[in-house]
Amino acid sequence: MTLTVTVWGEFVHERRNAEIAALYPDGMHEAIAQCIRAGVDDAAVRTATLDQAEHGLDEPTLASTDVLIWWGHLAHEQVDDRVVDRVQARVLDGMGLIVLHSAHLSKIFRRLMGTRCNLRWRAADDRELIWTVAPQHPIAAGVPHPVVLERHEMYGEYFDIPPPDEIVFLSSFSGGEVFRSGCCFRRGKGKVFYFSPGHETYPIYRHPDIARILCNAVRWAAPQPSAIDTHTSPRSNKNWWVSA
Amino acid sequence: MTLTVTVWGEFVHERRNAEIAALYPDGMHEAIAQCIRAGVDDAAVRTATLDQAEHGLDEPTLASTDVLIWWGHLAHEQVDDRVVDRVQARVLDGMGLIVLHSAHLSKIFRRLMGTRCNLRWRAADDRELIWTVAPQHPIAAGVPHPVVLERHEMYGEYFDIPPPDEIVFLSSFSGGEVFRSGCCFRRGKGKVFYFSPGHETYPIYRHPDIARILCNAVRWAAPQPSAIDTHTSPRSNKNWWVSA
Amino acid sequence: MTLTVTVWGEFVHERRNAEIAALYPDGMHEAIAQCIRAGVDDAAVRTATLDQAEHGLDEPTLASTDVLIWWGHLAHEQVDDRVVDRVQARVLDGMGLIVLHSAHLSKIFRRLMGTRCNLRWRAADDRELIWTVAPQHPIAAGVPHPVVLERHEMYGEYFDIPPPDEIVFLSSFSGGEVFRSGCCFRRGKGKVFYFSPGHETYPIYRHPDIARILCNAVRWAAPQPSAIDTHTSPRSNKNWWVSA
Amino acid sequence: MTLTVTVWGEFVHERRNAEIAALYPDGMHEAIAQCIRAGVDDAAVRTATLDQAEHGLDEPTLASTDVLIWWGHLAHEQVDDRVVDRVQARVLDGMGLIVLHSAHLSKIFRRLMGTRCNLRWRAADDRELIWTVAPQHPIAAGVPHPVVLERHEMYGEYFDIPPPDEIVFLSSFSGGEVFRSGCCFRRGKGKVFYFSPGHETYPIYRHPDIARILCNAVRWAAPQPSAIDTHTSPRSNKNWWVSA
Repeated sequence: MTLTVTVWGEFVHERRNAEIAALYPDGMHEAIAQCIRAGVDDAAVRTATLDQAEHGLDEPTLASTDVLIWWGHLAHEQVDDRVVDRVQARVLDGMGLIVLHSAHLSKIFRRLMGTRCNLRWRAADDRELIWTVAPQHPIAAGVPHPVVLERHEMYGEYFDIPPPDEIVFLSSFSGGEVFRSGCCFRRGKGKVFYFSPGHETYPIYRHPDIARILCNAVRWAAPQPSAIDTHTSPRSNKNWWVSA
Repeated sequence: MTLTVTVWGEFVHERRNAEIAALYPDGMHEAIAQCIRAGVDDAAVRTATLDQAEHGLDEPTLASTDVLIWWGHLAHEQVDDRVVDRVQARVLDGMGLIVLHSAHLSKIFRRLMGTRCNLRWRAADDRELIWTVAPQHPIAAGVPHPVVLERHEMYGEYFDIPPPDEIVFLSSFSGGEVFRSGCCFRRGKGKVFYFSPGHETYPIYRHPDIARILCNAVRWAAPQPSAIDTHTSPRSNKNWWVSA
Repeated sequence: MTLTVTVWGEFVHERRNAEIAALYPDGMHEAIAQCIRAGVDDAAVRTATLDQAEHGLDEPTLASTDVLIWWGHLAHEQVDDRVVDRVQARVLDGMGLIVLHSAHLSKIFRRLMGTRCNLRWRAADDRELIWTVAPQHPIAAGVPHPVVLERHEMYGEYFDIPPPDEIVFLSSFSGGEVFRSGCCFRRGKGKVFYFSPGHETYPIYRHPDIARILCNAVRWAAPQPSAIDTHTSPRSNKNWWVSA
Repeated sequence: MTLTVTVWGEFVHERRNAEIAALYPDGMHEAIAQCIRAGVDDAAVRTATLDQAEHGLDEPTLASTDVLIWWGHLAHEQVDDRVVDRVQARVLDGMGLIVLHSAHLSKIFRRLMGTRCNLRWRAADDRELIWTVAPQHPIAAGVPHPVVLERHEMYGEYFDIPPPDEIVFLSSFSGGEVFRSGCCFRRGKGKVFYFSPGHETYPIYRHPDIARILCNAVRWAAPQPSAIDTHTSPRSNKNWWVSA
């Protein structure tokens, strides 16, 4: 069965900044899409960006998306609230959502969390180590312990999110901070994975361990059949103790 | 130390319906307030209602509230979004929030959950049993197992909420349904307790076991000192491995 | 990739009681094995019983088992502690474990939980409804809401287990009780699923919805590659901030 | 209401090693007891040690203990299994248990966890930072963010414990590791807190922030009244839908 993955990229910074453009000449979304194409055999991967009509996330596109990956940074407030409503509804209906790095402040992530989602940060070439704390979790399958990112932006606690349903990874930084860098959330019929690596000035999405984690997350977040409808609060007049 | 508790009641149905008015002549908020006054020695309890200016929840009132209790049913959409913003901000800053019964569809609860919060229901004089599944949790202290509500509205699964951080109570109904009836959520620096008993046509808030649970919840939800500020994502330039 | 599943059955009651023998002429383990053979394409399924040498769970058998299913009732105390040690070690090393019904009091389950694992019960032809409370969980994929068991033994709360890492199913019974009937636990590198349906005097393991759940659970519990070794507490002399 | 706290210390290393004896001349248990005496107004604090009859934990002592604090390191295997059985039973009956530092390998902690409880370590004067990740949790009340331990033994992931019911603190170390250093577990009617600071060659239990955390944990772990009995699996013949 084919898994349809849509990678959404803000695609703003890559076109303004030569350093980032050199790392990601086709945009970060293309680099992320390439990870999934190379690592998930049965995935059909497409991309969408902020500058497209409806940000590339019109109703038919979302309806046919199994897993949506979201990277944004500079332009969170430019994302149309109606598109955010639509993405939220699709997650609650079962679509998987993978939220990357600076998208911790995206409208869709804050909407699904209910909290401020703030954190500490520092862009100063910290070394980051990503330690697995759930070796039995599918997103950690085959992942080295720790994963080493030679240089990355620091993200540190306190990260203002609800207690994750599962914490898969914790990161340490050479400046001394810690971060819950891989967190799972269950929302409605959908699964959400937040993964912090991915600053635009480092080639994080070229790193094979990061690619492995993204591919594991796509498979984990895939939708599944469910008899449950969460769109209304139905009145139920049945007495279950009386057999039909 | 005094604990300041504000009980918010929609106070609409009680004024329209003779049956409800007979049960709660001063409004449901007054009955709930009475539970807290009688059971929490150090509580200063006040009430607020929808028809007041800013629904009785202006900035100074919220700023001085330690725990807010919320009951609403008919008029969720009449609650001003700016008041919802304010309540959410206060919860994230540490105020406790207790959400009762039909307030599962209140704007503030849906905002904090990020999900639809729908459920199944039936108003047909079901008997409800409230079973404790966390005997070590402070909200279950001294509570009978089960608590028996002779007649109550049925609320049944699937209840579209995030997996609770702690489930304290599960209910069964004489029609056959189950419900996660006592659920704790941690959001920002605040604690949230959802408790399903409390339909307006039954004298639920006159029941001593229910009063005990509400009082336990108030104490559990009380704010506490914290050095953490979640209002911004601050840049941190300190290297922690270099002693000051 | 083939998934090797071992179904362990106590196989005592089936040989003593004509009613049970009529339902399960080859033993309950064979009925359970048949569910997995029919529903998991890539599974190689074998069985083991109490009366075999080392209860059929010698070192090579366990070492080659991906998922172990455990049903026991009358003879928990006859299970050799050395076999329990071995099963526990295999779970902590990654083998999946599915614990069924009365095996809530098995040595291996109590060992992995650390609690007494007691519950309330009544064998009186209750009707049981199994409600899904985690529609996004792989074990609930394609499962009706609710699953109806026309007649079954009642298991009720309080069930003395640690708070499950994930609750997938809640059951109600026609006598009024509730039960956390489908619970996931992560222990070491292994995954454990407790599922309460399966009393020996009812044909529960002939029920297609139950078979579906068991098959889902087998796939969920399958082991995965991990770089982590939990056998010792190693001394680490590396300073990670110094690149190699 | 007086809270009776018993501090159990192995009291072996302090009598063999001059460096440790200089830090803790009366034993580590006395330093820990002093923290509780100074910070919990209504606590009656006593101590018990390995060399006493029944390790100082006879039936009446345990029966009158509200919260037990456990520090051990060299002599875990010398603790009598019958005493471990007794402590476990008391925890399941509601006694709080606080497990410190190297007691991650104590019999009682491994018994309650069901896992190996191994971790990485290094005694090399690392600097440790203790970051709060649950600012709304009572054990974090009034605790600086981060707490700084200038020199301490490193404990690092993977720590082989079940996913904690609540993670309150995460630590980073100057060598690069992270650790879930403050973890809550609910077991039976009792609450368990594991807190990693406390190596015998550092004056950790003289540190005011550590004392604050220990006192917060004692109050959090205190027992509470419960109508539930977990000692047996009782047969229940009542039909709850028939009123008495």
